[in-house]
Amino acid sequence: MEVFGNGISVNEAGHLTLGGADAVSLAREYGTPLYLMDETVLRQNCRDFKDSIDRYYDGNGLVCYASKAFSCKEIYRIVKEEGLGADVVSGGELATALSVDFPADRICFHGNNKTTEELTMALNAGVGRIVADHIGELQMIGALAAKLGVTARVMLRIKPGVDAHTHDFVRTGQIDSKFGFALETGEALAAVKAALATPGLTLCGLHCHIGSQILDIEPFVHTAEVMLGFMAQVKRETGYTLSDLNLGGGFGIRYTEEDDAPPYQDYMEAVSQTVRAKAAELGLPVPFILIEPGRAIVAPAGVTLYTVGALKEIPNIRTYLSVDGGMTDNPRYILYQSRYEFVIANKATEPKTATVTVAGRCCESGDLLGEHLPLQEAETGDILAVLATGAYNYSMASNYNRVPRPPVVMVKDAVPRLIVRGESFSDMYRNDI
Amino acid sequence: MEVFGNGISVNEAGHLTLGGADAVSLAREYGTPLYLMDETVLRQNCRDFKDSIDRYYDGNGLVCYASKAFSCKEIYRIVKEEGLGADVVSGGELATALSVDFPADRICFHGNNKTTEELTMALNAGVGRIVADHIGELQMIGALAAKLGVTARVMLRIKPGVDAHTHDFVRTGQIDSKFGFALETGEALAAVKAALATPGLTLCGLHCHIGSQILDIEPFVHTAEVMLGFMAQVKRETGYTLSDLNLGGGFGIRYTEEDDAPPYQDYMEAVSQTVRAKAAELGLPVPFILIEPGRAIVAPAGVTLYTVGALKEIPNIRTYLSVDGGMTDNPRYILYQSRYEFVIANKATEPKTATVTVAGRCCESGDLLGEHLPLQEAETGDILAVLATGAYNYSMASNYNRVPRPPVVMVKDAVPRLIVRGESFSDMYRNDI
Repeated sequence: MEVFGNGISVNEAGHLTLGGADAVSLAREYGTPLYLMDETVLRQNCRDFKDSIDRYYDGNGLVCYASKAFSCKEIYRIVKEEGLGADVVSGGELATALSVDFPADRICFHGNNKTTEELTMALNAGVGRIVADHIGELQMIGALAAKLGVTARVMLRIKPGVDAHTHDFVRTGQIDSKFGFALETGEALAAVKAALATPGLTLCGLHCHIGSQILDIEPFVHTAEVMLGFMAQVKRETGYTLSDLNLGGGFGIRYTEEDDAPPYQDYMEAVSQTVRAKAAELGLPVPFILIEPGRAIVAPAGVTLYTVGALKEIPNIRTYLSVDGGMTDNPRYILYQSRYEFVIANKATEPKTATVTVAGRCCESGDLLGEHLPLQEAETGDILAVLATGAYNYSMASNYNRVPRPPVVMVKDAVPRLIVRGESFSDMYRNDI
Repeated sequence: MEVFGNGISVNEAGHLTLGGADAVSLAREYGTPLYLMDETVLRQNCRDFKDSIDRYYDGNGLVCYASKAFSCKEIYRIVKEEGLGADVVSGGELATALSVDFPADRICFHGNNKTTEELTMALNAGVGRIVADHIGELQMIGALAAKLGVTARVMLRIKPGVDAHTHDFVRTGQIDSKFGFALETGEALAAVKAALATPGLTLCGLHCHIGSQILDIEPFVHTAEVMLGFMAQVKRETGYTLSDLNLGGGFGIRYTEEDDAPPYQDYMEAVSQTVRAKAAELGLPVPFILIEPGRAIVAPAGVTLYTVGALKEIPNIRTYLSVDGGMTDNPRYILYQSRYEFVIANKATEPKTATVTVAGRCCESGDLLGEHLPLQEAETGDILAVLATGAYNYSMASNYNRVPRPPVVMVKDAVPRLIVRGESFSDMYRNDI
C-alpha cells in the first residue's frame, strides 16, 4: 500500500512507514529531529532519469546528480553505483565525492566564482568537465592547466534568456543573473572564441540551467531550441563543432497536492525530440547531452521527523505547534515560504481535522516550517513527519542558536543505517579557541 | 581618525583598518572570507550597557548578552570579564558558556521549546534563570527539579502585546507569536498562578522581548509600563511580589546611514524613569531589571572580508560583483534583505562612484549580499569589507554547497588572534559515514 507515494505508507499500527520501516520506531531509536532517506526511491529516481536517456536518446548522454541538493559520502557512492555522474559546486563537494573514489571524469564542476584552490583541485583530479562562468575564469583555468601540464575540458555556462516562470530566487536563465554568459549581447559567442583561443583548454560544449522546481516541460524544450541554435551559430562563425550540450536541471517535484509535476520521462521525450530535430535542421551532429537533476532525485526520498513540543492555541488567530527542529534543519520556509505535506507519524490514518502553524525551536519569530496547515489532532510527544525533505534540507542546515545538525539515516528494505552522524552539543564549540 | 566609527578607520596606505589592524594584511594572513571582530569596540559596548544601568538605575540590574547573536568560547570569556550575564537559547550555547566556566547564576535560559535534555543540563549547572515559555514547560521544569533535588529559578515569558514597528520576521511582542504567554487573554496570569503552585520552582519574575533592531525608544517605555502594570496585577490577585523584570533586547544598531539608532544610554534613562515611576505609582518595590542586548554589543564590532572575483556588467541592468563567500557566511540578505555598508578595503579613500550588486559564490540566484550598492571602482583581487557584521553572520552560517565556514579573528590594539578556526574541505565530510 503506497498511501503517500514514494515508498511512504502506513502500517498496521497506524504509523507512517518509509521504505518499509516504522517512522515512529526510527524516531525512538535515533532521536529527533531525524532526517530519513529511502534508498529504493532514491535509486529508482536515478534509474528513471538514466532510463529516459537510454529510451529516448539512445543512451547518448549522462545524468549528473546535482549534489548541492544533498551531498554526503553515501549519496556519491549510490549515484556512482547507478552509473550517474555528479555535478559539484565547490571544493567541499568535490572533496567529498573524491573521498569515495567517485570517477572524476563523470564530474561537472560548477560555480560563478570558483577559487584558484578549487580549480587546482579539479584539474589535479582530472574532473571531466569544468563549467566556466566568466572570461576571467577561462584565463585562470588556462593558466592553471599550463602550470600543471594538463588539458582542461571546459564547458561554458550560457544564459539562454528563458524565463522559467518560477520563484525569483531560483530563476537563473534570464539575462539578469550572476551566472554565465548572455546570448543576446554577443557575450556568449565572444566567450566561445576566447575559450578556443586559450591554450590548455578543450571546449567540449555548452551548459545552461533555467531555474529550479520547474513544473512545465515547455521552458526546457524552448531552451534546447535556443541552445541548438547557438551551437549552429558557433559552427558558422568559428567552424568549431561543440560535442556536448548540458541542459542543466530544475525538474520540479510534487511537494504538495498543488504541485503537478510531469513524469521525468516526459521531459526527456520532448527534449530529445527537439534536440534531434533541431540538430538535423541545422546540420549539426546530434550532441551528447547531460542533465543535472538534484532535487528530483533526492527530495521525494526524504522525510524529516520531529517530536511535537508545546502547542499554543491563540484564540481567533492560530495554533502554534512547536517542534524540536526548524529553520536550522530546514530553512526553506523562512527563505522561500516553501510548502510541504505534514503528517503525525503515529496518527497517520487519522483525518486531518486540525489547522496548525508549525514553529521551530529557534529564538526567531520567523522560524516556522509552515503556516495554517491541515494536520491530525496533535499532542505533545507525537512524532511529526514532513515529507519530501530530501533536498536542500540537510544541505542548507545551519548551527544557528548552536543547535546541532541532526543525523541522516538511510532505509533500505526496512533496514535503517546511519549515513551522516548527528552533531553533539560539544561539536558546537569544536572550532572555538 | 575614526572614518567609519566603531574603531574602523583608514591608514596611510589607504587601507581600511579595524582596531588599528590593516584589513588588507589580515586578509592576506588569514585568507578570505574572514570574520573580524574588534575587542575594544566589543568591550566598550558591554561597558556602555552596564554603565547605563549603574548610572540611571543604581546598578540594580544585570546586562545579559544575548549570545545567539554570536556564540563562541571567547565571547563568553569577554562578557564574563566585563561583568555581564549571558542569555542562551539552547543546549549548544549553554554548553559553550559552561565550557569556559561562565558563572551559571548569571545565565538566562530561553526558548519556546526547550528539550528535557537541555532543561536537565540547565538545572544541573544551576542556571540562574530559566525563562519558561508555556504551561507544559513549567510542569516539565518542576518535575525535573524534583527529580534532581534542586529548586529551579524561573521567569515567565510574557507577550506584552506591543507592536515594535519592525520587520515581520523579528517582531515578537504581539499576541500572534510562538513565544510566551499572552496578557490580554488571561493566559499570563494563569501561568503565574501555575508557577506559584508548582513545587520545585521559585518564580523570580517576568520576561518580555518585543522584537529586534528597534530604532525607537517609545516601544520599550510602553512595554515597561505594561509589564509593571501586570506585576501589580499579580500582586493584587495572588499576593506575590515578583522581584525581577527582564525587559529583553532588540536595541537597533546603525547598519547604514539610513538607520538612526538612539544611544543605548537614552533607552536606559527613559526606561529607568518609567520603571521607577510606575513602581511608585503602583506601590511595588523597584524591580531588579535585566536587559538582553545581543546585536547591539557585537554587530558594530564585526567586519567581514571577501576577495573580489568575477565582475559582470550586464548592460542597462546591473553589475554583479562576485565574492568568495555569501549566503553561507551571511544569510541576512537572502533572509531579510538586510542592508550593510560595503567598502573596498584596499581603496578605502577612493570615492564610491560605482553601483554594484554583490553576489555570493553559491549556486543559488538569491545568493546576494546586497543590490545596487554604492562602492569604489572594484577589480578582481580587491578586498571587499562589509561593516557591522558581528551579529547573526557567523552564528547563522551554514555549509550550503559544502562551503567551509570562515575563521573568526579578534583584533585588540592592532594585534590579531584566531578565536574560531575556519573549516577545511575535509571538515565538510567529517560526519559522513
